[in-house]
Amino acid sequence: MSTLRAALCSVGDELLAGKHPDLNAPYLARELQALGVEVVEVAVVGDDEQAIAAAVTRLASRAELVFVTGGLGPTLDDVTRHGVARAAGVALMLDPKAHDQVTAWYRTSGREMPASNSRQALVPEGAAVLANPVGTAPGFEVSLEGGAVVRVLPGPPSELRAMWEQGVGGRVRASLGQGTVRVEQRFHLQGLSESQFSDDAGAWLERAANPLVGVTVARGLLTARLVARGATEAEARGVLEPLATQFRVRFQPWIFSEQHATPEEALVEALAARGLWVSAAESCTGGLVAGALTAVPGSSAVLRESFVTYANDAKESRLGVGRELLEAAGAVSEEVARSMARGAARAAGADLALATSGVAGPGGGTPEKPVGLVCFGVWFQGQSWAGSRTWPGRAGRAAVRDWATAHALVLGLRALEGRLPLEPER
Amino acid sequence: MSTLRAALCSVGDELLAGKHPDLNAPYLARELQALGVEVVEVAVVGDDEQAIAAAVTRLASRAELVFVTGGLGPTLDDVTRHGVARAAGVALMLDPKAHDQVTAWYRTSGREMPASNSRQALVPEGAAVLANPVGTAPGFEVSLEGGAVVRVLPGPPSELRAMWEQGVGGRVRASLGQGTVRVEQRFHLQGLSESQFSDDAGAWLERAANPLVGVTVARGLLTARLVARGATEAEARGVLEPLATQFRVRFQPWIFSEQHATPEEALVEALAARGLWVSAAESCTGGLVAGALTAVPGSSAVLRESFVTYANDAKESRLGVGRELLEAAGAVSEEVARSMARGAARAAGADLALATSGVAGPGGGTPEKPVGLVCFGVWFQGQSWAGSRTWPGRAGRAAVRDWATAHALVLGLRALEGRLPLEPER
Repeated sequence: MSTLRAALCSVGDELLAGKHPDLNAPYLARELQALGVEVVEVAVVGDDEQAIAAAVTRLASRAELVFVTGGLGPTLDDVTRHGVARAAGVALMLDPKAHDQVTAWYRTSGREMPASNSRQALVPEGAAVLANPVGTAPGFEVSLEGGAVVRVLPGPPSELRAMWEQGVGGRVRASLGQGTVRVEQRFHLQGLSESQFSDDAGAWLERAANPLVGVTVARGLLTARLVARGATEAEARGVLEPLATQFRVRFQPWIFSEQHATPEEALVEALAARGLWVSAAESCTGGLVAGALTAVPGSSAVLRESFVTYANDAKESRLGVGRELLEAAGAVSEEVARSMARGAARAAGADLALATSGVAGPGGGTPEKPVGLVCFGVWFQGQSWAGSRTWPGRAGRAAVRDWATAHALVLGLRALEGRLPLEPER
Repeated sequence: MSTLRAALCSVGDELLAGKHPDLNAPYLARELQALGVEVVEVAVVGDDEQAIAAAVTRLASRAELVFVTGGLGPTLDDVTRHGVARAAGVALMLDPKAHDQVTAWYRTSGREMPASNSRQALVPEGAAVLANPVGTAPGFEVSLEGGAVVRVLPGPPSELRAMWEQGVGGRVRASLGQGTVRVEQRFHLQGLSESQFSDDAGAWLERAANPLVGVTVARGLLTARLVARGATEAEARGVLEPLATQFRVRFQPWIFSEQHATPEEALVEALAARGLWVSAAESCTGGLVAGALTAVPGSSAVLRESFVTYANDAKESRLGVGRELLEAAGAVSEEVARSMARGAARAAGADLALATSGVAGPGGGTPEKPVGLVCFGVWFQGQSWAGSRTWPGRAGRAAVRDWATAHALVLGLRALEGRLPLEPER
């Protein structure tokens, strides 16, 4: 197994000005970690030839693999080529293959190439050109005297990702050792925190393990990635499968999909496959459940209509929630959520309906119904379910609403999968 | 005016693993830039004493101000203190003031202090402790032999921000020169790209300018920050006001607020101040307009109910859009959007209603109605308006939906402000 080290250099004045976070270094770091390569340092420098050269030289003394991103544009302030050439101690030259790529890009997009863009065909002498399938600027790869290999890639995240997925990633993998085959399996989880996950995963998360288990978190959803390596695919699969099976057992309550990174994608696909319609009745999530479902292309095949019923009057008139129930149990109650789901299903003629009613905060909490309490109702083909969760209200209104949205969608998935204890409607 | 340079060091194995982007360096970079301090480099290193010491030493040779964030927790892998002490060439010692802060934090939160947490009171000999108002780990400030001042702050963004705003920022500002007073003015804009803004702002964006103009972009919204400095507040204001006035004139069509960073906050406040109710009828935004409005605390005072009408049937039955109109003009048309807004206002009993109907993509585009076309309808107290915008569909479904959501909210604001050419309803 490889014990190579990598160092990353992100180039751009806009990064030093804090205009946006650097997303390229985390992306490359995750991809490299999945290949078993350890990232030892990230440097962010401005569009400054000398600073780039100094950073590349230094990083090349710490790591065998150096990745430089950004500063490959056509304008005069894009000097990454110059900085890397300086670090390599060679001149820049116009590479005919790179020039062809730049002109071909303009030809296929039907535009004339500005003269300044021929600058993008400059590479350090002796460098290999790396094709860019989605933009004008090709990348390149050059070896430094100490033996480090420096790969230079464009800064726009979509171009970087396309180049990595369609060539550079494979090139790096191949360089890690002939005959090493890598297979991976992803699990998408909802409802547990990263620290709970770490506690439960225990030794699985060790850095040198095979399979290697990595986890990323976004919007409260966890993605665990199991990567196994072996001399052959069969060997790698033989390493992967037992852990994947154990993983499925240990984390079963939280896994919502092995294919889809978000519960909305998983739910829209599951509904479309069954030819079913969904609707929502939202109070505290205020449109986010519908917003998530309609974020999925093709969702018009599963959602005709959805309801945001913030006020009690709207719950009553639009969804038929009884006034007595609202007064007795309160709007934030499991029974009201159940009644909201029933009403949305009927009004929209849906097979599945999801309802939320909670205290998103920051105000409105009481000792019995604190900020962070959210009640959920699910109606599915004549049966219903209601329940509640309390999230830490101090995490803020946005976090509570995001968690509640994801949870509602996962409840819908569970209902479809027969994993929710639905009760027949009276 | 100061010409000091700063360098930032973000510490954490999770950053090198790419688990999440580094948000602390961009935050500090923006704050420092607003003080007229140039950030020359950002280094990201792991929880590794030697790597931290090497990075701090190197950054201190490039910049007068060094900020280190992260790795101040109570566990054994938090070694930032040790790394900085090594760079300063001094020992760590238990600081009584820091120890008081750590124990006080536990006392006020009613919990017992774990023994490991006394580790958080260790600081390099000769360092000044920086109070942390919202967490256990205090920061510290230490001068290196070459003269650079190193400030070490906790990694959780909320703690870092609280420390900056409640003390460290003022300390840095004070160190930049006695008598320099800084005043700022923000403008929040929607509907133009960062490059359009840069073209129009021209020389205002020069780095050494006073006032200094900075811009950040999030969800397609721009925030421009004008920062003026002077020997007295009156002098700084005298520098700021003329540019602020010119800015208001030049960017008037795009400024939606000088107080609120998002159009939903501005709109909810404007509605609440007037005692008005809002509703939405959403097709392509599918709940995001309602989701944005209800993201604002207190929005229940302005929104009772909102509608997601994805299918034509729902537009017809829920909002009363005529079948003939839907068939003649198509669902994605200004007249249908106008009719949707009218229907939502009536159904919800709202004073203002916002409607969206568009082609979010990736599929569904035609030569006449391409991906990226969104039609908007606004109904306000018996008058209405309809219009459309076409965004570049290749930016993706999520971007088109986000832009359309922000645009709908800004249209609502314009209606309230009398800046939208509303027509009396027939």
